[in-house]
Amino acid sequence: MEEKEISQAVISRLPRYFRYLGDLKDEGIERISSQELSDIMKVTASQIRQDFNNFGGFGQQGYGYNVVYLYEEIGKILGLDKEHNLIIIGAGHLGQALVNYMNFERRGFIFRGIFDSNPAICGMKIREIEVQPMEKMETFVKENNIDIAVLTIPKSGAVAVAEQLVSYGIKAIWNFAHVDLNVPKEIQVENVHLSDSLMKLSYNLASHDN
Amino acid sequence: MEEKEISQAVISRLPRYFRYLGDLKDEGIERISSQELSDIMKVTASQIRQDFNNFGGFGQQGYGYNVVYLYEEIGKILGLDKEHNLIIIGAGHLGQALVNYMNFERRGFIFRGIFDSNPAICGMKIREIEVQPMEKMETFVKENNIDIAVLTIPKSGAVAVAEQLVSYGIKAIWNFAHVDLNVPKEIQVENVHLSDSLMKLSYNLASHDN
Repeated sequence: MEEKEISQAVISRLPRYFRYLGDLKDEGIERISSQELSDIMKVTASQIRQDFNNFGGFGQQGYGYNVVYLYEEIGKILGLDKEHNLIIIGAGHLGQALVNYMNFERRGFIFRGIFDSNPAICGMKIREIEVQPMEKMETFVKENNIDIAVLTIPKSGAVAVAEQLVSYGIKAIWNFAHVDLNVPKEIQVENVHLSDSLMKLSYNLASHDN
Repeated sequence: MEEKEISQAVISRLPRYFRYLGDLKDEGIERISSQELSDIMKVTASQIRQDFNNFGGFGQQGYGYNVVYLYEEIGKILGLDKEHNLIIIGAGHLGQALVNYMNFERRGFIFRGIFDSNPAICGMKIREIEVQPMEKMETFVKENNIDIAVLTIPKSGAVAVAEQLVSYGIKAIWNFAHVDLNVPKEIQVENVHLSDSLMKLSYNLASHDN
């Protein structure tokens, strides 16, 4: 966008606002006050107003926010008004799950290519998309204006593949490999470390057990 | 464990320490100073010492931490010295991906049962575990000492299923459904909202694009 840097904590909360506003919109609710939003989202109204003030406040008047307007504005801030071209590297169970999850496409995240290092999998189709060998990746990324790469490969290969992808011009990596990638600062990385999440659950379970 | 409440921010960092220490252990490295750990993990040495001080400090002497000891102690704090019995609700692509991911089992998270509301899927086997109908869930949870339920079902059914699970005695929920669950405070919930993560990536991409 523009101007000042918004904190990652605020940004982490935006998708949740977007989700609740989408539900309200689907229910046909036209206006909502920060207090009502606070009640259903279980965050304070002042937190909500503070978060929204980072983006100009979305003009709440005495009678609340316009739900559709707020939904669309937050969508734009999240970059959901543009289409993104994705490739996925790793056509295992998790890769297949992601490609098959229709909600991403509905939000403008379109899987264009699937790559795997296992020759036995290449040629297989997932939702009409043929799994290609890794050697085809460079040309594909360059010819298809791919901006996001999804990594669902084991940690052993992930760091090297990420470096390759960056050299091909990828701008963002959604990383499911259980390793920290080593890419330049201007490349956006979002990690989903499933084991870390499960361990955190296990910690909270253990620490509340007695 | 015991005594004071540790902040969730510290807890979120523990699995990452555990991962790096596991790698160091596998490489045969016996000792490491907080400064060396800081260099490879790209966090400050003082952050590391502060985090570890929450758990008594793990006794770094002049010559650093004992890698195996530190790895095992953090593992215990994370509750990885105990076995957990899991069920998963939702045998779609994501559910299958999680059941097939061997690393969870290696850490003591054992999938005991799989449930799905789709009769066409029931009877199918994933890694020798037969998919059962939802009606079998209550008895199964009670008879098999299940402590963690994994939710990989659409958001429409997730809130109700979570409430059922709690009434059956489940203590923790690993929630992949794209909705906030409404369960008592003593039930541990860890959310993996994949769409939120992708939107955050999209935001960072959009905000660094110009």
